[in-house]
Amino acid sequence: MPETARRADLLPDRRSGTRYGNRPTMKDVAARAGVGLKTVSRVVNGEPGVTADTERRVQEAIEALGFRRNDSARVLRKGRTASIGLVLEDLADPFYGPLSRAVEEVARAHGALLINGSSAEDPDREQELALALCARRVDGLVVIPAGDDHRYLEPEIKAGVATVFVDRPAGRIDADVVLSDNFGGARDGVAHLIAHGHRRIGFIGDMPRIHTAAERLRGYRTAMADAGIPVEDSWTSLGVTDPQRVSRAAEEMLSGPEPVTAVFAGNNRVTVTVVRVLAEHRRPVALVGFDDFELADLLQPGVTVVAQDAAQLGRTAAERLFRQLDGILVTPERIELPTRLIARGSGELPPAG
Amino acid sequence: MPETARRADLLPDRRSGTRYGNRPTMKDVAARAGVGLKTVSRVVNGEPGVTADTERRVQEAIEALGFRRNDSARVLRKGRTASIGLVLEDLADPFYGPLSRAVEEVARAHGALLINGSSAEDPDREQELALALCARRVDGLVVIPAGDDHRYLEPEIKAGVATVFVDRPAGRIDADVVLSDNFGGARDGVAHLIAHGHRRIGFIGDMPRIHTAAERLRGYRTAMADAGIPVEDSWTSLGVTDPQRVSRAAEEMLSGPEPVTAVFAGNNRVTVTVVRVLAEHRRPVALVGFDDFELADLLQPGVTVVAQDAAQLGRTAAERLFRQLDGILVTPERIELPTRLIARGSGELPPAG
Repeated sequence: MPETARRADLLPDRRSGTRYGNRPTMKDVAARAGVGLKTVSRVVNGEPGVTADTERRVQEAIEALGFRRNDSARVLRKGRTASIGLVLEDLADPFYGPLSRAVEEVARAHGALLINGSSAEDPDREQELALALCARRVDGLVVIPAGDDHRYLEPEIKAGVATVFVDRPAGRIDADVVLSDNFGGARDGVAHLIAHGHRRIGFIGDMPRIHTAAERLRGYRTAMADAGIPVEDSWTSLGVTDPQRVSRAAEEMLSGPEPVTAVFAGNNRVTVTVVRVLAEHRRPVALVGFDDFELADLLQPGVTVVAQDAAQLGRTAAERLFRQLDGILVTPERIELPTRLIARGSGELPPAG
Repeated sequence: MPETARRADLLPDRRSGTRYGNRPTMKDVAARAGVGLKTVSRVVNGEPGVTADTERRVQEAIEALGFRRNDSARVLRKGRTASIGLVLEDLADPFYGPLSRAVEEVARAHGALLINGSSAEDPDREQELALALCARRVDGLVVIPAGDDHRYLEPEIKAGVATVFVDRPAGRIDADVVLSDNFGGARDGVAHLIAHGHRRIGFIGDMPRIHTAAERLRGYRTAMADAGIPVEDSWTSLGVTDPQRVSRAAEEMLSGPEPVTAVFAGNNRVTVTVVRVLAEHRRPVALVGFDDFELADLLQPGVTVVAQDAAQLGRTAAERLFRQLDGILVTPERIELPTRLIARGSGELPPAG
């Protein structure tokens, strides 16, 4: 996403503590130039479809009013500090650390505060939290959804709350969403194990109702099908990612007369538990995990992962949120960021025996 | 803190989404029983200083009104969902994950939402965020302070916002604070290295204006003095904890004609960087780090740490916050939680050479 990265670099690095008065808006520019809001948006964004004469009038209005596109004033509802809300899934999952921090950095560059909360993977709580943030007059919401029905946000969106979903798509509403390529990443990770000679490959993932978990399982099944390997039921295990459930699942796959020779771990919480199980295991077992994690390279062997760019997910989502607040984006889009396979040793082990 | 832990277990596990009407308060109980608020508080908390007759009257009033001490209604300012704010230091530092989650769990047990924000170690931003949360009518604040002057919170505290500081003390106001024994933990960790034969021991820590960093340095100096070892200037390095600064500091201490034979790392961010530097180093160097971290036991050697109980810090702070909202606590207290040395190999290496 070089375009996004470049925009972020250009944003003013505003000091905290700044408050803003009434600054000119795009609407003021449109009124002064005698054109529609969309035309101002086109000029500001350098999009085609504006005559030279109209563009000149808009530019004159921008200069006369002192309008600045990246001005923090645009996110302000009169008299308050601008703020955006972030609805997280789990405060203690390290995947969300860089994502949250990236959202915060973009918010700060726009002179806005970030307020977080966590749904703890509970759809009711997600809704309660999102609406509580709206009631506390955030200007926009970045949501990592726990639920699959977000129609409860429609009145807020109509009332002007900018909304971007990240990591997982929105349910039953049309909204901006920024995702990783969960399907393609998992498919490539499993194909990597197959390329190293494995056929009996286990998949341990999160609850199947979670979009990312379902997509990664689909990637696993596709890679196996592409290689002509029928998947046995005992090779897949989906459920909560607490260490007890995951270690039991791993131990079951690794026992019996025909154990798996490799494991694909569906997220970083699963991977760290599988690493613990394999450290106690007598035969070497190959491992590829979805999500990179701290110190993965210093373990022995280093853990091969399919890395998402968590910071870029957060940055992209937050940038889109502020563009919505500019009135620049009209049509909701689905943005998918690529993943990257990082080979470190564990995924290149040959099948034991 | 068994007392606190027991209280937490007894709290009602309220479902999210619950809203509360006007429930009886301790004031109502006091009015009906014809006693002062402090007397009701004593009865509710089983404290001494109440006659049998008075206690009976208070109990009758409690039953008649249906007052419940742990009722979530007590944190409610009329008609809204109860909420508490948490001002963090860094969203991406894994130390704060379990702390945040523990605060959230206590909040949830009291039917309250948790709203977070991060100061990114900037005192101005801490103030802006804390006041913005108050303006959004949180019932209480748990603050990990970045600054050292919190008089700006006095009007909010007078207006009834409960406040507890955690991890670091408040500055220039009298407030509840929950800390780890940073001094004692560091002293014990350094004494552990000395007991394993080290005399040339380096200390790499965070910025000295941060309370925890200063306390841990004091612990290092005390352990060295107790062992009669004069500390050379080149053995201590304090500053930001980004990997560049920390690896340079570590490499300097490890080079030259008389390198250190052991390093005490002042927090988890420092430790993971020092682990990386030592992995590239030709001679074995002993290491003890302040803070436990994920996978520390699976590295080779396992990393010896002085562990804080981050979850217990958060839980204790949040419990005190809700007790303040009960009107139960009157005098601010300073609670210090013990640390625990966990020997895993890196801290037991003998001096090289």
